[in-house]
Amino acid sequence: MDIKRIKCTISYDGSRFAGYQVQPNERTVQQELEKALARMHKGEEIRVTASGRTDAGVHAMGQVIHFDTPFSIPEERWPAALNSQLPADIAVLRAEEASSSFHARFSALGKEYRYRIYQSPHRSPFKHTYACHCPFELNAEAMQEAGRRLMGTHDFTSFCSAKTEVEDKVRTLTKLEVIKQEEEIELRVAGSGFLYNMVRIIAGTLIEAGRGRMSPGDVEQALKGRNRALAGKTAPAEGLYLWSVDYGN
Amino acid sequence: MDIKRIKCTISYDGSRFAGYQVQPNERTVQQELEKALARMHKGEEIRVTASGRTDAGVHAMGQVIHFDTPFSIPEERWPAALNSQLPADIAVLRAEEASSSFHARFSALGKEYRYRIYQSPHRSPFKHTYACHCPFELNAEAMQEAGRRLMGTHDFTSFCSAKTEVEDKVRTLTKLEVIKQEEEIELRVAGSGFLYNMVRIIAGTLIEAGRGRMSPGDVEQALKGRNRALAGKTAPAEGLYLWSVDYGN
Repeated sequence: MDIKRIKCTISYDGSRFAGYQVQPNERTVQQELEKALARMHKGEEIRVTASGRTDAGVHAMGQVIHFDTPFSIPEERWPAALNSQLPADIAVLRAEEASSSFHARFSALGKEYRYRIYQSPHRSPFKHTYACHCPFELNAEAMQEAGRRLMGTHDFTSFCSAKTEVEDKVRTLTKLEVIKQEEEIELRVAGSGFLYNMVRIIAGTLIEAGRGRMSPGDVEQALKGRNRALAGKTAPAEGLYLWSVDYGN
Repeated sequence: MDIKRIKCTISYDGSRFAGYQVQPNERTVQQELEKALARMHKGEEIRVTASGRTDAGVHAMGQVIHFDTPFSIPEERWPAALNSQLPADIAVLRAEEASSSFHARFSALGKEYRYRIYQSPHRSPFKHTYACHCPFELNAEAMQEAGRRLMGTHDFTSFCSAKTEVEDKVRTLTKLEVIKQEEEIELRVAGSGFLYNMVRIIAGTLIEAGRGRMSPGDVEQALKGRNRALAGKTAPAEGLYLWSVDYGN
């Protein structure tokens, strides 16, 4: 039987998911994808592999997954076929046949995340699960200057969860932009790889810089100190979007 | 005891409400507002009056309500005081003391609604409760031209629910704009008053015009025919926003 590997770019609203990865008794993105595929494959289990997990409440504009199937549906038909089986808060945006050597996680060269912050005296009913609410003014220039100190290749021990077990905490940030649009500030952070909670800790630290409670120099010292306690708080999950995964094409 | 009338501008995400008005065993906006006020007033019932109801799934950016209270909180403190008692999908944006002759419904001179439509081959997980999805291309110019035929004072029998019991179906539309922004089309409809489902039927009819299935002349004929069956379908609730209420100031 001819097996095809299908690569899909998917988007999901993380508001009502307990994260990407399957967990018992919880609604997760992976579980919904595998349920939809099982329905299409007459109950046969089809395993889905993603570029990486996302936590509860985190959104995705361009998460990438792959799976293997014996079906020979033309690639452009997969999105509609899967979307008809998926709940409304997940959508398959694109699908393509990939070579059997393609792997959503191991073939990824880098990722971009975005973090949305909105400043307003009162919360917005439309943004409470889609952006981090700051009731105070943030100085975007100070945030950009602080962010500049994190660019490049560094040991990011201060910017990952203290529980992280991975040994090598050296990562490379290739982009860190602070973009102000009306009442929102968006962080765009791209790099070759990310440690657990890294983008949310960068966001929490830049928020401190934007409030004037940490100077750009303090942020640089926090990085150099290799101690989680020196950086800002982990900003809430709702502001975070996995924006795109780079496979070099 | 000195009783004050408080006018509040509120916003809500209609996605998880069974509409504005209290109904037994349903989660409604009015019920949440009255619960929050009762909590602030030590269990005393405080009745809330809105500019009008909104249906299940319909959103509000600038709904206006009023209530009477014996409290003498400075008006600028009411938003934070109420927001601390309200669920995250309702927010009080502004509050002011109004004269006792102010009435959220009867003092209103007009309203503006907006209707969001998004065109894309696949649905967006972030818009499924916030805009109406059209998988086909719409011609915004044809929609604007059809909309022009509805402007002014007319008998809108064809553009209200056939169940409407109100006798006088003459209303005045003072604005009907079709605005194209990237993949979205937004309708902005203002008038002195609206019949039941009127904006959603206008939206459904302009969608037909945008698809080329009704010409601007057909839309004019539908209006003149005074027959609900001549106009387009009632467009779904999720695209509709009560944008603002005009009290002439």
